[in-house]
Parts: sequence; C-alpha cells; structure tokens
Amino acid sequence: MYKLVLIRHGESTWNLENRFTGWTDVDLTPTGVEQARQAGRLIKAAGLDFDVAYTSMLKRAVWTLWHALDQMERTWLPVQHRWRLNERHYGALQGLNKADMAKQYGEEQVLVWRRSYDTPPPALEASDPRSERGDVRYAALQPSDIPLTECLKDTVARVLPLWNEEIAPQIKAGRRVVIAAHGNSIRALVKYLDQIADDAIVGVNIPNGIPLVYELDAQLKPIKSYYLGDAEAAARAAAAVATQGKA
Amino acid sequence: MYKLVLIRHGESTWNLENRFTGWTDVDLTPTGVEQARQAGRLIKAAGLDFDVAYTSMLKRAVWTLWHALDQMERTWLPVQHRWRLNERHYGALQGLNKADMAKQYGEEQVLVWRRSYDTPPPALEASDPRSERGDVRYAALQPSDIPLTECLKDTVARVLPLWNEEIAPQIKAGRRVVIAAHGNSIRALVKYLDQIADDAIVGVNIPNGIPLVYELDAQLKPIKSYYLGDAEAAARAAAAVATQGKA
Repeated sequence: MYKLVLIRHGESTWNLENRFTGWTDVDLTPTGVEQARQAGRLIKAAGLDFDVAYTSMLKRAVWTLWHALDQMERTWLPVQHRWRLNERHYGALQGLNKADMAKQYGEEQVLVWRRSYDTPPPALEASDPRSERGDVRYAALQPSDIPLTECLKDTVARVLPLWNEEIAPQIKAGRRVVIAAHGNSIRALVKYLDQIADDAIVGVNIPNGIPLVYELDAQLKPIKSYYLGDAEAAARAAAAVATQGKA
Repeated sequence: MYKLVLIRHGESTWNLENRFTGWTDVDLTPTGVEQARQAGRLIKAAGLDFDVAYTSMLKRAVWTLWHALDQMERTWLPVQHRWRLNERHYGALQGLNKADMAKQYGEEQVLVWRRSYDTPPPALEASDPRSERGDVRYAALQPSDIPLTECLKDTVARVLPLWNEEIAPQIKAGRRVVIAAHGNSIRALVKYLDQIADDAIVGVNIPNGIPLVYELDAQLKPIKSYYLGDAEAAARAAAAVATQGKA
C-alpha cells in the first residue's frame, strides 16, 4: 500500500482579497505561512515521510511546501517544480474580485466560471499584460501550452500527463511523494483518483493548508483518503471555499 | 565568458553564539534571514540570473537560498541539494564555543583547528549522538563518506568531485549556476578556482550573505571575482569572520 499526501497552499494575499488568482504569482499571507507550518507539523505528527516533493511554479505553493518541509525537518528533500501543477488559469478574470463579479454578472455566472467542469471563463488576450506567455519561467514551453483560460476539464487534461508519466511511476517504484499545489490542480487529481463524475466535482472543495492523505493500492486505486488533524475544521474550511463566489 | 555566484549562508544561531557548527543543522537568525534577502536583492539589482541553484543538505544554506530566490523572483528555479557542499565537519568541536575553546586550549590551537589546511580537529566517535551517521538525509551514502572530522584539505577533497563531475560541466554547457553553501565549502571552491596555496588559504574568509561573483573564461579560469554591494562592508564582514576564534 502506498501513501500520497496533497497540500493546497496556505491563504494567499488574493485569497484574502477574494480575487481570482489563477496563474498570477501572489504571496502567502502571514495566516497562510502559519497554515503551511501547521501542515508540516501535522504531517510530522502523523509519522509520514517522503522521498520527493512536487510543487508548482507559483510561489504560494512553493512557500507552502518550504514552510511545511521545515517543520518536518526535511528542508533537504528534493523538490520538483512542475507547471502542470499550477492553479487553473482563470483567463480574463485573473485579478478581479469574486464578489464584485457576482454583483456584476450574478452569482450563478460566477459559479459557472468557478466550478463548471467544461465552461472556461473568458480568455485573456495573448497580448494582455496579465498573460504568462513571455514569462521566463515558462520559456521552455511551447506558447500554446501556456493557457489563456481554462475550465477544470482543461486543468485535468494538463495535470494527468504529469501524474501518469512521472508521479504515478515513482509511487509504484516505492518513492513516497508529497505534492503542494492549488485548489484546482488538486481537484483534478482528486477527480481522477476517486473517479468523480464531471457533474459531481463541483461539490468538491479543497481547504487551504490541510494535508490530504490518500492510501492507494498496488494499482494506485484509493483505499481511503482523509484530512490530517481536526476533521470538522477541514470540513468547515472546505465549506468556506465554496462560499467565496457569493455577492 | 561565464558567471558563477557563490553565497555563504546568512548568520546562523550558532554563528551568533560563536559555536563550532559543522554538519549540525541549525537555523538562520532573523539577521541571517535579512542577509539572505539582501543577497537576493543585490543579485537581482546586478541583473544576474540563473538556470539552476545548488545548495547543501543543511537548512541555514537552504533557507538562505530560498529567501534569496524569493527576492530574485525565482522561487521556481530548480534546486539541487548536495551533501558535498556541506560545511566542513568540525568533529568533536561541533557545538562547542569558539571563545571557550580559545580560553581552554589557547587561541593558537583554535586557529589551527579553524584554519590549518591539513590538521583536523579531534574526531567525533561514530557512536557520539552528535554524529550524522544514521541521519536519514545521508542514508544513500556509504557511512565512510560521512566524516567524523575534517580539515579543509578533506573538505576540498569531497567538494571537488561535485565541481568537476556536475557543476563545471553544467557551466560549460551554458547553464547559469548559483551556489548557496558554507564558509569552508566555499573556501574549498575559491581555493581551487583561484589556485590559492595551502598556506595562503588561511587568510581567506568568506562573509555571511554577500554574493561573490566569479567571471570565468572558457576553461573556467577566473578572469575576476568580486563581492556585490558595498566592497568595504564585505571586507569588514570577512575580517569579522577571522576574529571569531579569539578568547
């Protein structure tokens, strides 16, 4: 049996400001730092250990991992940065306030943008200064690999090659993996692992900074999964994520 | 022409307490964190950029790198942790106060332990709780690769294979490298690059948290080297390192 641990980054400055973030590279808040450290303490207390860590190209996930590793006394662990673990790209909504958008377009439209499986938000123009095309960190990618908007289906499509070609083989080889990533890149993994239907994934919310443990069988099918620490606190935090699109 | 940047970690808790640290894994002080951030700002202001970062297995170097990368907006850069970049192992002196040792054994003896090229301090017993044999982070090494004490000559001998077999080939392939490491692992590199004689390296001190830039020719011979920022501040900081062994 294998164990995989997923951590959504701690609270970011734009979580706090209730803005759509996507690929925009924003910092953790002091609360987010503390969430990350607490995630590390929970992992250590649970006796979990790792051979390799994965994270995204975005610093709210990277710093979450670093702070967690520090609390786990694993600052020396190899860390792999992968763009395929980035947050879902929020297109032209990046930077805008979720509640403002709900007032302007209605809560229903915002819920569609936030949680529809296959309807992406309006796309950024490639020439928009917010576009990540031209960002040096993605210089090795084809420009067409850098999204201008994504629905969750798109995010699943670009997360899964990383899972199938790199992470799953490592787990099967016995390497213990922790992934610090984002609400939607983690939802993409959860949808795949738990075989959640397209219309049911809308109800799945990932709280910030609470380690999610998967116990996997030899074929990497989940035996069970659970949040570390206080289960009710995790449920409340997940429910709070769901309300962010209210006006 | 290539550029290589070396950063000694910021002030650690045991620098502050004037204790021999070696392979003991101690934290940065708040001053050390600020030195690391300032190192990143200096590097960014100098227009230097990198493709890969190297650091040791010890968190004072790792955190120095992380804080510097954050200020450089390069939190996504690949980071390689290498035990060969660890500080010189200080043997049975690890944890002891430098000034206390100077009072007990005399300043001359402490200077020999600190700076003699080929006389190591007294060795740790392998069974000493301070020994790193059995530390999970070095589990992939042969126990005999994990020192019980080192003189600088020993440190040079274990740093150079990393330089010759991994780092130098990458630089020659055009990859831009930054190394965040320790006073003596950096002195080992400086001795090799600048071809400093065994009896002259004693006078070379590396200040905490000030980026040291080497400009190298096609054969990786130094054209010149310099500290970023205020040259006099770097000289004062290096001189302060030299006085740590006074009673």
